[in-house]
Amino acid sequence: MKSVLVIMGSDSDYAIMKNGLKQLQTWGIPFEAHICSAHRTPQKAAQLAAEAKSRGFGVLIAAAGLAAHLPGVLAAGTTLPVIGVPLASGPLAGVDALLAEVQMPSGIPVATVAINGAVNSAILAAQILALEDKHLAACLEAYKLELKDKVDKKDRGLAQQLAADGLA
Amino acid sequence: MKSVLVIMGSDSDYAIMKNGLKQLQTWGIPFEAHICSAHRTPQKAAQLAAEAKSRGFGVLIAAAGLAAHLPGVLAAGTTLPVIGVPLASGPLAGVDALLAEVQMPSGIPVATVAINGAVNSAILAAQILALEDKHLAACLEAYKLELKDKVDKKDRGLAQQLAADGLA
Amino acid sequence: MKSVLVIMGSDSDYAIMKNGLKQLQTWGIPFEAHICSAHRTPQKAAQLAAEAKSRGFGVLIAAAGLAAHLPGVLAAGTTLPVIGVPLASGPLAGVDALLAEVQMPSGIPVATVAINGAVNSAILAAQILALEDKHLAACLEAYKLELKDKVDKKDRGLAQQLAADGLA
Amino acid sequence: MKSVLVIMGSDSDYAIMKNGLKQLQTWGIPFEAHICSAHRTPQKAAQLAAEAKSRGFGVLIAAAGLAAHLPGVLAAGTTLPVIGVPLASGPLAGVDALLAEVQMPSGIPVATVAINGAVNSAILAAQILALEDKHLAACLEAYKLELKDKVDKKDRGLAQQLAADGLA
Amino acid sequence: MKSVLVIMGSDSDYAIMKNGLKQLQTWGIPFEAHICSAHRTPQKAAQLAAEAKSRGFGVLIAAAGLAAHLPGVLAAGTTLPVIGVPLASGPLAGVDALLAEVQMPSGIPVATVAINGAVNSAILAAQILALEDKHLAACLEAYKLELKDKVDKKDRGLAQQLAADGLA
Amino acid sequence: MKSVLVIMGSDSDYAIMKNGLKQLQTWGIPFEAHICSAHRTPQKAAQLAAEAKSRGFGVLIAAAGLAAHLPGVLAAGTTLPVIGVPLASGPLAGVDALLAEVQMPSGIPVATVAINGAVNSAILAAQILALEDKHLAACLEAYKLELKDKVDKKDRGLAQQLAADGLA
Amino acid sequence: MKSVLVIMGSDSDYAIMKNGLKQLQTWGIPFEAHICSAHRTPQKAAQLAAEAKSRGFGVLIAAAGLAAHLPGVLAAGTTLPVIGVPLASGPLAGVDALLAEVQMPSGIPVATVAINGAVNSAILAAQILALEDKHLAACLEAYKLELKDKVDKKDRGLAQQLAADGLA
Amino acid sequence: MKSVLVIMGSDSDYAIMKNGLKQLQTWGIPFEAHICSAHRTPQKAAQLAAEAKSRGFGVLIAAAGLAAHLPGVLAAGTTLPVIGVPLASGPLAGVDALLAEVQMPSGIPVATVAINGAVNSAILAAQILALEDKHLAACLEAYKLELKDKVDKKDRGLAQQLAADGLA
Repeated sequence: MKSVLVIMGSDSDYAIMKNGLKQLQTWGIPFEAHICSAHRTPQKAAQLAAEAKSRGFGVLIAAAGLAAHLPGVLAAGTTLPVIGVPLASGPLAGVDALLAEVQMPSGIPVATVAINGAVNSAILAAQILALEDKHLAACLEAYKLELKDKVDKKDRGLAQQLAADGLA
Repeated sequence: MKSVLVIMGSDSDYAIMKNGLKQLQTWGIPFEAHICSAHRTPQKAAQLAAEAKSRGFGVLIAAAGLAAHLPGVLAAGTTLPVIGVPLASGPLAGVDALLAEVQMPSGIPVATVAINGAVNSAILAAQILALEDKHLAACLEAYKLELKDKVDKKDRGLAQQLAADGLA
Repeated sequence: MKSVLVIMGSDSDYAIMKNGLKQLQTWGIPFEAHICSAHRTPQKAAQLAAEAKSRGFGVLIAAAGLAAHLPGVLAAGTTLPVIGVPLASGPLAGVDALLAEVQMPSGIPVATVAINGAVNSAILAAQILALEDKHLAACLEAYKLELKDKVDKKDRGLAQQLAADGLA
Repeated sequence: MKSVLVIMGSDSDYAIMKNGLKQLQTWGIPFEAHICSAHRTPQKAAQLAAEAKSRGFGVLIAAAGLAAHLPGVLAAGTTLPVIGVPLASGPLAGVDALLAEVQMPSGIPVATVAINGAVNSAILAAQILALEDKHLAACLEAYKLELKDKVDKKDRGLAQQLAADGLA
Repeated sequence: MKSVLVIMGSDSDYAIMKNGLKQLQTWGIPFEAHICSAHRTPQKAAQLAAEAKSRGFGVLIAAAGLAAHLPGVLAAGTTLPVIGVPLASGPLAGVDALLAEVQMPSGIPVATVAINGAVNSAILAAQILALEDKHLAACLEAYKLELKDKVDKKDRGLAQQLAADGLA
Repeated sequence: MKSVLVIMGSDSDYAIMKNGLKQLQTWGIPFEAHICSAHRTPQKAAQLAAEAKSRGFGVLIAAAGLAAHLPGVLAAGTTLPVIGVPLASGPLAGVDALLAEVQMPSGIPVATVAINGAVNSAILAAQILALEDKHLAACLEAYKLELKDKVDKKDRGLAQQLAADGLA
Repeated sequence: MKSVLVIMGSDSDYAIMKNGLKQLQTWGIPFEAHICSAHRTPQKAAQLAAEAKSRGFGVLIAAAGLAAHLPGVLAAGTTLPVIGVPLASGPLAGVDALLAEVQMPSGIPVATVAINGAVNSAILAAQILALEDKHLAACLEAYKLELKDKVDKKDRGLAQQLAADGLA
Repeated sequence: MKSVLVIMGSDSDYAIMKNGLKQLQTWGIPFEAHICSAHRTPQKAAQLAAEAKSRGFGVLIAAAGLAAHLPGVLAAGTTLPVIGVPLASGPLAGVDALLAEVQMPSGIPVATVAINGAVNSAILAAQILALEDKHLAACLEAYKLELKDKVDKKDRGLAQQLAADGLA
């Protein structure tokens, strides 16, 4: 299986992105994670993007806040799919990061997920890699069932809660 | 090669999405396009999503405006990657569609591109399919060079324009 | 009297929606409440909507946050009135949920109330059901008087507070 | 059948709201329409709201732009359900009207539909009245099928368009 | 001197508005304060507005949050100037209240101040009443000098702070 | 009667503000109008503000677009009430001007009206001046009746229009 | 004098930026202009930034729309001041470009001017270069007087216009 | 070397701006800091701007929140470059201040940095002054390397953290 290259703009992003990394690990998807800034280490960012394909990566995940250029800068340097995770750092609650990631000009897409959507970036990466990996595809099907089961369980829990609250 | 399932919420979306379909065609990527609404034909939407994998699709592209539920509704029904294209229909210029597509809850990602980003949705689909298709990967590399060449050509054109405008 | 079907996208929505359920209970309006996600349990959502009328429901209330598709997805599956409650979960304070619920395309309305407007969703449901229920209509008239009386009482309390603060 | 009271804040709103009136007429729903401003004719607005129930109305639809107080002012004066239609007049494209209608305080809901959602306001009114009107309920079921059929027809039309454009 | 009629939509608004009342008191401006809701006590609101002039008021101040109709509803019922104070209650931080107050249609202005701008509403009321009250006008001139002196004093304090912080 | 000082930031603002000047003229309110920029002619702006009271003005109206500092800069230089008119010039449709005018810090209020609210700025000025001018007060009462009559007339016109459109 | 490096993300930006180039030319400030995209020609962008200082440039101006990364990407590659011009291309009227340029993380500033602020970018560049160029400083002082004179002239023109319109 | 004039609208801004002053001090850039309000001490603001050049300043930094006119007011009074720092005070999280600073009309630019971007304002000032100061230019080059080194160090720290978290 190809692996996933996860790049965060700052070490403060790790608290959010850790959840995505755990999800990748759960499914046995190999990944490599880095702190790399589009503005402070632009050459490293360019190098990571340029070498990503030859080093065996299949998907990039880039997470950044504020004027979040990192996913776009990586997408400029590779033809691999790049997933962008806008982070809600700073006073604008991630709206700045969302627009800076999703509004890419024609020719250089960034596959943007929700603000702070670390887990969804991992799932999206898995969905992409699963196209050629039957085991991973099965994991995703099972995960979808788990999601359903959790909601069904919560629904049963609600019935109990309503009874406890005198609402049933 | 797996093919791409392109779904538009309304026939008025075709004017924008046609550019994406042309891009897919240019690269020889097989696709099937439909008008299907999350709200008016929900069962068909559910069916298209449920059958997508077994029918040989590898990626879904869903384009919608306003409260754009289509990409999320399709993502609910498949483990294939779903690309969302928010469309700028209505008075809010696509902000409603953007938020309704990108802010998906954990577990069900939508890979959102820019408002009206039809071409980028096609490129992203191609990037995903190219992971296992060397010819398509080469097409994407060539396309990236073309983008560069076009900008370089425009830069040379600017020099002429500046001279014509007495600014050089 | 017809009853109300209340559906929440997540169990974390219960803290807000409980206030609406209490209001329904106060007026003796029968209701059934569920956790059901448009994206994690889409079939259950479709089923709940499809069977709502035959099961004796008159109104649906759907509460969700982020890309809040739940009310629209339910409205797609029934001709009963669907009330949407946008919830302020996530960094965008419910603006995403508001737009995802209220900006429904022509043909499939969602009767949207304020962000976190659980009580108002219950009142709106009661107003609808009261059209053919004189007792409930009387309850609503009495409630309106109570609202007035509470404000009048607060106005009298203000006079005391002003005196206590040396402002009268 | 109870009838619908439709109130527009200005005569310039009629161009949009006419589509809703036509929808009501199609289904044989009796309605009465007025121009009445929350700010220029507040007493008439209060009177219309106060008398609405005794005059046989079951639902109010109120459409206004800018600081759109009309639906809320009407809701203050009746316990009938009030549907609000925010209109995109002025430079803010209806965002002002949307927030002024949907963000009602607890106790006085306004059932808000999309910006310029005249047809949806009519459908919502019909859904409410249909709770006790089997013929109207059947009309709504038929309308839902029509919506589906139109999309299916558009989908077939797309196949032709794709062929015409050399994309199929 | 004419007096000021201060109306708050809810008792929870008093914590903010108290600062404005203190300012009025400081300058010896007579005022009367009420809790009165545009939606819960509309008749009282209409009555307060209708009688304001004959009862000797010269200016109204109205403070409300969310879909803040109170200032506009009062302005509909009087030709006295009405000052609106949008309050930052609820998840939208007062943007809803600001738009619902300031975007009044032609004919019925509301003199809107900043979100939570209780003190500024009092100063604006004083500026209006000072047009025919030389003592109050002198108070305002003195207040302007105080504002200046406070800033000058803070500037001197900054010099000390910079020295303490080793920055001077 | 005191007169009104109307200041526009640019000559392009006159097309909008002319409607306000006409309203002042209709009521016989003396006014003086200037083009004066907070940024291009700051000294003239400061002088106009400083001399306004001694020159017999009672109210200032300031209209500007973009980063609309003009009303605030004038308010800094006078204790007369300053009315701000945000203008919808530029790509942000006046949101920039609205926030730059209304969000004044404590101590220096600007009485802000709607975006492009030229007529309302004139009415607000008239309301302020009418506090000590019985004739003007009567004009405002008459104007309020005219507004009402116009709406009533439009309401009768609607009845005719509905008949013409086959909707009555 | 050091010269100015002006970089546009697309040739469609020239229509706006030409006004800035003319301003530079008027003051005799040498400049070099290029079309260069942060995403399509990232290496050229990096090279232009890296060589800017040694090639004699003193300031960079970068103009781009949508997810406008160009100014930030250039700022990442030089210690020269970089001025960003957000352009109002696309449905979001330049809000996306504004946030993507101004919200730069700590360490890498972009001196952002108004949306479409081409002339202001040139003036800012001139202000920077004028610190060590007395002739250019004098030009800027003269320009400031011209701005003042133009407003004064417009003010006199307003007097004539008011007379022509019967408003004086 | 020319020095930097740093002006804050309020003493509460010092907590943020201190970080910028420290950065200036680190590089040995002389500065003078003041509390001065565009609205409370407009004459002092005008004087500071008017005398800035003759007193040996090369750059102004102005920080303010809400309707942040301070940078624009200073820019109106000098031809030196003025850097604006929007501050996130008040309920709108600095969006008001950002628009009030960046959207300056043609002729009077403000070089706006990020909301709360105190350090970036200092770096931008340093970049400007470094054009004619080789030592400072070297400091900036060194700082850029430090930024890079810090990110590289954080990247190595991430490797350790991943190992500690069982993710590597």
